[in-house]
Amino acid sequence: MFTLDQIAATLGRPVQGDGSLTFDRASEPGSAGPNDLALAMSPAYGDALRTGKARAAILWDGADWESFGLSGAITVPRARLAMAAITAALDDGPDMNVGIHPTVIIGDGADIAEGVSIGPYAVIGANVVVGRGARIAAHVTIGRQTRLGEDALVLQGVRIGSHVHIGDRFVAQPGAIIGADGFSFTTEFENGVERSRKTLGDQGDPVRQPWGRIHSLGSVRIGDDVEVGANTTIDKGTIADTVIGRGTKIDNLVHIGHNNRIGEDCLICGQVGLAGGSTVGHQVVLGGQVGVSDNITIGDHVVAGGATKIFTRVRAGEVILGNPAVKMETALAMQRATRRLPRALEALSELRKTVTGKGQGTRDDG
Amino acid sequence: MFTLDQIAATLGRPVQGDGSLTFDRASEPGSAGPNDLALAMSPAYGDALRTGKARAAILWDGADWESFGLSGAITVPRARLAMAAITAALDDGPDMNVGIHPTVIIGDGADIAEGVSIGPYAVIGANVVVGRGARIAAHVTIGRQTRLGEDALVLQGVRIGSHVHIGDRFVAQPGAIIGADGFSFTTEFENGVERSRKTLGDQGDPVRQPWGRIHSLGSVRIGDDVEVGANTTIDKGTIADTVIGRGTKIDNLVHIGHNNRIGEDCLICGQVGLAGGSTVGHQVVLGGQVGVSDNITIGDHVVAGGATKIFTRVRAGEVILGNPAVKMETALAMQRATRRLPRALEALSELRKTVTGKGQGTRDDG
Amino acid sequence: MFTLDQIAATLGRPVQGDGSLTFDRASEPGSAGPNDLALAMSPAYGDALRTGKARAAILWDGADWESFGLSGAITVPRARLAMAAITAALDDGPDMNVGIHPTVIIGDGADIAEGVSIGPYAVIGANVVVGRGARIAAHVTIGRQTRLGEDALVLQGVRIGSHVHIGDRFVAQPGAIIGADGFSFTTEFENGVERSRKTLGDQGDPVRQPWGRIHSLGSVRIGDDVEVGANTTIDKGTIADTVIGRGTKIDNLVHIGHNNRIGEDCLICGQVGLAGGSTVGHQVVLGGQVGVSDNITIGDHVVAGGATKIFTRVRAGEVILGNPAVKMETALAMQRATRRLPRALEALSELRKTVTGKGQGTRDDG
Repeated sequence: MFTLDQIAATLGRPVQGDGSLTFDRASEPGSAGPNDLALAMSPAYGDALRTGKARAAILWDGADWESFGLSGAITVPRARLAMAAITAALDDGPDMNVGIHPTVIIGDGADIAEGVSIGPYAVIGANVVVGRGARIAAHVTIGRQTRLGEDALVLQGVRIGSHVHIGDRFVAQPGAIIGADGFSFTTEFENGVERSRKTLGDQGDPVRQPWGRIHSLGSVRIGDDVEVGANTTIDKGTIADTVIGRGTKIDNLVHIGHNNRIGEDCLICGQVGLAGGSTVGHQVVLGGQVGVSDNITIGDHVVAGGATKIFTRVRAGEVILGNPAVKMETALAMQRATRRLPRALEALSELRKTVTGKGQGTRDDG
Repeated sequence: MFTLDQIAATLGRPVQGDGSLTFDRASEPGSAGPNDLALAMSPAYGDALRTGKARAAILWDGADWESFGLSGAITVPRARLAMAAITAALDDGPDMNVGIHPTVIIGDGADIAEGVSIGPYAVIGANVVVGRGARIAAHVTIGRQTRLGEDALVLQGVRIGSHVHIGDRFVAQPGAIIGADGFSFTTEFENGVERSRKTLGDQGDPVRQPWGRIHSLGSVRIGDDVEVGANTTIDKGTIADTVIGRGTKIDNLVHIGHNNRIGEDCLICGQVGLAGGSTVGHQVVLGGQVGVSDNITIGDHVVAGGATKIFTRVRAGEVILGNPAVKMETALAMQRATRRLPRALEALSELRKTVTGKGQGTRDDG
Repeated sequence: MFTLDQIAATLGRPVQGDGSLTFDRASEPGSAGPNDLALAMSPAYGDALRTGKARAAILWDGADWESFGLSGAITVPRARLAMAAITAALDDGPDMNVGIHPTVIIGDGADIAEGVSIGPYAVIGANVVVGRGARIAAHVTIGRQTRLGEDALVLQGVRIGSHVHIGDRFVAQPGAIIGADGFSFTTEFENGVERSRKTLGDQGDPVRQPWGRIHSLGSVRIGDDVEVGANTTIDKGTIADTVIGRGTKIDNLVHIGHNNRIGEDCLICGQVGLAGGSTVGHQVVLGGQVGVSDNITIGDHVVAGGATKIFTRVRAGEVILGNPAVKMETALAMQRATRRLPRALEALSELRKTVTGKGQGTRDDG
């Protein structure tokens, strides 16, 4: 149970009306009951707020709270920022007791700080270091020589490999895998991929030959305040470490191949894939299902829209879209033009007939 | 061992020839031995049936079974429907003994119905409710306060979070994750993504600022008869629950972000991603690798072909394709036109020279 | 610790300078210390080599090793091949002790060869056969009747289903799932997907109807020397087995649906998806995020660039790109032309005005 005054203190905003109102939980405006705090930080929620039964709400800046029949309200200038504060205050956190479950297996020389929780059946390798306040859930495995910082939250079934170095306040959702072997293979003789890249499409006479593994001698190095999503995979580097910079947040089912170096404060959305060897700057946002080819450089502050496929260098600050990636405004212009294309080709054909009497040429597919 | 008569009863179809024939298993026609029942429900399998050694077969409607030298046959009007019935009848199911393995850890207040099986090393949280007939495999974890309906089949290493509500006959393939935290972050000041969306490509002067998490206070609500594929991830909602409607089937490696509301009887194929906050109607089919941007509305009965990328509202009943999604027939016309485009631009250039003497303009890239 | 002479023997190449030099590890040239062996197999690393502190290096063919102030060097004609040999020699392998951990649960009739290691909490089903030298990590589950060949390396949390047949020297990265149920559903009456495919876009009057599962009676058959990446999923076949040919390497988060038959020595990169029922030849390379629709035939030696979407048959030896896939040179020409398209449509419109006075037709969207 919490009060409107408590939420106001969290937000650093004044209460309008009765601050002593108490709530069981936060709710969407339309389904809110009398014991719910309605979250209605945009005028779009006005109607829902009227149909719901909330006695109090968090409202958009400038909202006339009394017009909604509320007994109390707080207005906020930036909805999502308020959401961060409110949800953090109301989150009762994951289901973890303090202490190390008796079924946990810990290797020789491991250094587990005071106050760490480790759930059932977790397996911690030799010489692992776990910082204060870390919470490690059931079924997690951590390889030898790995260092996990303070206040980590490592959820069910996460796999962390050996020699990984992770900063403080790390969060890993269930099933994330940090430190699998890189996907790096080669052949005795030049292969079709190598030739195709040189010639942009001609691989000559291909031959059958087996693929030999290039082993991963590097590991993964992760800065402070990094989050990694469910079932995401981050591979070890070949010689140096794969790097994830401080403050970077990674969504579910993302693939970060070997030797990538991701900067700080990046946002990498669901199902993004980075093949390997790329350098990504700071505060870069890669939308869902973005793909990054290997050995690409992406500058600071780049924003890539959903499903953008990046095959070449991207300059700092660019907003890009499409396959292959171009500036977003160019991509949108190309999309509009391509929609008009079938009719335009007809118009072209007619025009050619009018001008020259030759109308067939453009109908041959390339 | 089973007989042709038994299969006929399953299918509700008459036997032609000897119904007492017995078989060890079903097989493809070409590789079938004398103790195999050949599945040859299309004329395309006719030749393979002749080269195989099957004594009996399931055949397409109207097939002349005696012409294949068979001793018995059943013809069926709809091949895939017959496949469903035959494979259900012959599936001996997963490897699970009745009972709760002694290594299972069950939290306080959990309510496990009679006849439930739980495999080795599973960890069940406090106050979890598991319905009758549920089978939970090894290494599964279920968070506190979660409700799992009757006759569930939850396979190895599935992670179900806390406060999740799941209907009857739920199936989760290995590694599926239900109820990870949503990927929802914000910044103190307006950020490059927000600006880029407003301006469609211009993010102004970007600044460095950290991402703050919006916590997930909601959970996941799943209807009856839902199936979830291997290593698929479904995130919790922010305030309300993420919803998967009754009868919806989800394939492997699918990402369903926070606050999505998926309707009933949908089919969501491999590697589809839904960013978050979208509403998907009933009987919607999303082909493999489809992407759905955030806060999109998709109407009932929409069919999206493989790799379609959906950035805007889709009306009920539309069949769509492409990136960005357009009606399938439009997409196919655009594809054909784009293949002709390189030559068409040459033709246009020549035509301009003919008409005006200016042939250079179209060669400037945008 | 290792010597330059040892590396030279591994590579089958002569030492230049002092072969007795000893090293702790291999390093990138720029960050190499005096006890590191610098890997600088391309002239691009020349400057970094000069700024680093390495006393010895592996260099590109023809490099003047003395000009870099080194005490010893080995030159190699093919950098990646040398990387494979060097990294294999220096990899001290995963963290696995010989023996079967006392917490491992093994089903009746399982046949575990001498010298096999199995990590904590693994669960091995009835009648499983594990070949000599196999190393199975913590939390792995293997279903009944499965056969795992010699010298396998099966990492943490891998799930192998029942009746799977796997050759020798198999490697599975953490979280890989071999043998989940195929995603195969059908309806009683013809459904919107089936109609849309026939009509290429028109599904008629769609009706609500539930999806019935076609069960997977087949399993998965994997040849020798196959590697499978982290969190990759490979589904069982419906009647026959899903097949992965000898020597094929599969990256992370790849989805291989039911009934696919992949040839030998293929390379399948991160996040590739194969829907089901396709036949892929030998030595095929599918770049990251490639998608393959169902029931497609892909010939030997095909190379598909990143994010290529394959909806139709691909002939042997083709190098393809794009959505939908076309020959790479065609795809690149289409990309260039589409970039020019917005201006070209303007030019076309002007030209029409000049010729006919009608400038509006091409502005109508289709």
